[in-house]
Amino acid sequence: MRRVYLDHNATTPLRAEAREAMIAAMDVAGNPSSVHGEGRQAKALIERARAQVATALGADGADVIFTSSATEAAALALAGRGLHCAEVEHDAVLAWAESGLPVDAQGAVQVAEPQAATLQFANSETGVIQDLPADLAVCDLTQGFGKVPLAFNWLGCDMALVSAHKLGGPKGVGALVLRRGLDVQARIRGGGQEMGRRSGTENVIGIAGFGAAAAAAARDLDAGIWDGVAQRRDLLEEAIAAEDSDIIFAGKGAKRLPNTCSIVSPGWKGETQVMQMDLAGFAVSAGSACSSGKVRASRVLRAMGFDEGASASAIRVSLGPETTEEDILRFARTWAAQRRKHRARAA
Amino acid sequence: MRRVYLDHNATTPLRAEAREAMIAAMDVAGNPSSVHGEGRQAKALIERARAQVATALGADGADVIFTSSATEAAALALAGRGLHCAEVEHDAVLAWAESGLPVDAQGAVQVAEPQAATLQFANSETGVIQDLPADLAVCDLTQGFGKVPLAFNWLGCDMALVSAHKLGGPKGVGALVLRRGLDVQARIRGGGQEMGRRSGTENVIGIAGFGAAAAAAARDLDAGIWDGVAQRRDLLEEAIAAEDSDIIFAGKGAKRLPNTCSIVSPGWKGETQVMQMDLAGFAVSAGSACSSGKVRASRVLRAMGFDEGASASAIRVSLGPETTEEDILRFARTWAAQRRKHRARAA
Repeated sequence: MRRVYLDHNATTPLRAEAREAMIAAMDVAGNPSSVHGEGRQAKALIERARAQVATALGADGADVIFTSSATEAAALALAGRGLHCAEVEHDAVLAWAESGLPVDAQGAVQVAEPQAATLQFANSETGVIQDLPADLAVCDLTQGFGKVPLAFNWLGCDMALVSAHKLGGPKGVGALVLRRGLDVQARIRGGGQEMGRRSGTENVIGIAGFGAAAAAAARDLDAGIWDGVAQRRDLLEEAIAAEDSDIIFAGKGAKRLPNTCSIVSPGWKGETQVMQMDLAGFAVSAGSACSSGKVRASRVLRAMGFDEGASASAIRVSLGPETTEEDILRFARTWAAQRRKHRARAA
Repeated sequence: MRRVYLDHNATTPLRAEAREAMIAAMDVAGNPSSVHGEGRQAKALIERARAQVATALGADGADVIFTSSATEAAALALAGRGLHCAEVEHDAVLAWAESGLPVDAQGAVQVAEPQAATLQFANSETGVIQDLPADLAVCDLTQGFGKVPLAFNWLGCDMALVSAHKLGGPKGVGALVLRRGLDVQARIRGGGQEMGRRSGTENVIGIAGFGAAAAAAARDLDAGIWDGVAQRRDLLEEAIAAEDSDIIFAGKGAKRLPNTCSIVSPGWKGETQVMQMDLAGFAVSAGSACSSGKVRASRVLRAMGFDEGASASAIRVSLGPETTEEDILRFARTWAAQRRKHRARAA
């Protein structure tokens, strides 16, 4: 039977537009730092992608610095600054910031000093969207970019992190976005690429894919493609809720990404659910992809006040534009059947 | 007229094998950190490429840590260690090491304490191959890998840097190779990918391309493809030398890469040569690609004892396996004609 991929917040399939741009870029031989024709052609691909990302992100006039991931962008933006953050942030942010900002039961983070804080736009596990304070130092836009309308220039933050592979671009490309006039200390030094902020010969093919994916994602978003995704996500939650009133959807009371559903099913380990659903043909996740190899309670849910047991009994289902109503209903049926089996065994 | 690309040390055209592997990888949707089938499939691509790179590099049993470039690998290997190096190293190495090791007129570097030094295998501008001392701390194999037989496990160094785009792989992928048992401090932290040494979702498509390119490069090297390249390089030098006895080939007295020719033509600025040859249909370089945008004397040639004027009057011609004898002879004819024009104007 056809597999159903419901883990778009971990990574997305490559969009046709990105694929096409990448294959075209494969024919460009030059090094973007070379002054000859072949080099200028490669440089032009990068600058085109930079403009595409800036436009898609509402960041015209800001500096877009291509990196190898949002994780690398986080290191550039955050290392050595000791900014405050909440426990719901991604590992790549927590690695460099001081956790401790209060989180409420719906996942909202309270920020006392925005200029000294880093805050995510949306959470990867629950989809909860933050009400961003003005003058935020750093904002992780990774999960929001391409899924909901947003403009860097209107958010009022100094810096933002984005990633290509969350919106149909290739894995291994991200960017740090900087308000013009700000600077960061380079962590990878040498050739002085990316305006001296990030050395190393550029990932030309991947960057071309990022640009094309960002442009296509912005177009689809404008066309309202995510409204249908939200309807299918809601349908999923209705179908699951009909199964048992014990089931909780984390963050459902908050404004959320249109595609994300966090299902807490106390007593049934998230890791077990992921494996059982995988065998049944569905790709979903427990916690964030980066840490999903480890069996442990979701720190995001713990921060929202769920107890250890409930936090270890969650899965994330994240839809994509290509997810159909049939996919969703088949998932809900299969999941419910597995759950009944689990409860029968546990009883 | 067909352009002739003679800047393979800056970057190489993408090999057919790499292109094919990358296009195949575009169909793999999962995140390598995800435990479901789609994730495991992506992980398998990376592990296959890791084995391909290790085998091609004679590094079986060593740790191959994929990075976004050899430049990033240099930062991982060198930052904070204060190793000694010579002025002939790449900018990415010089950024973290203490320059000052003596260099002779043929580009050979003298290393007193190998355990406290970093040394390149081959120079990107002159092609000069170092006689590596035993127990070297770090070796930059970027220009040697794929062009000359070498095996990490036999070099006796602790760590090595390599890059995909110098041997027909994509730009934006490199690796740090570590003798098993050694460790480095992660500079990009978060998800804990690459055995904790380098976080961030992996560049799956690019890494698949690196693996395929490395395997193909090793195969071609075994088949003796570079012997023909060396003959064409020698033919180029004969044709150029016939023009004027003033012309010097830097490092010609040393063991060199088979494809590299550094032409010093006193009185004719390298930058001017690069632009004139570009207009005439040939891509060559003055100095290393990363710094070739800047008009200045080659620091590599300065370190070898060339004076400021001579060091500013050099170009690098670097051949690839696809470079033909006709390409070479046409280049030599055109270059000689341009040189005569320049001398007529200067006179």
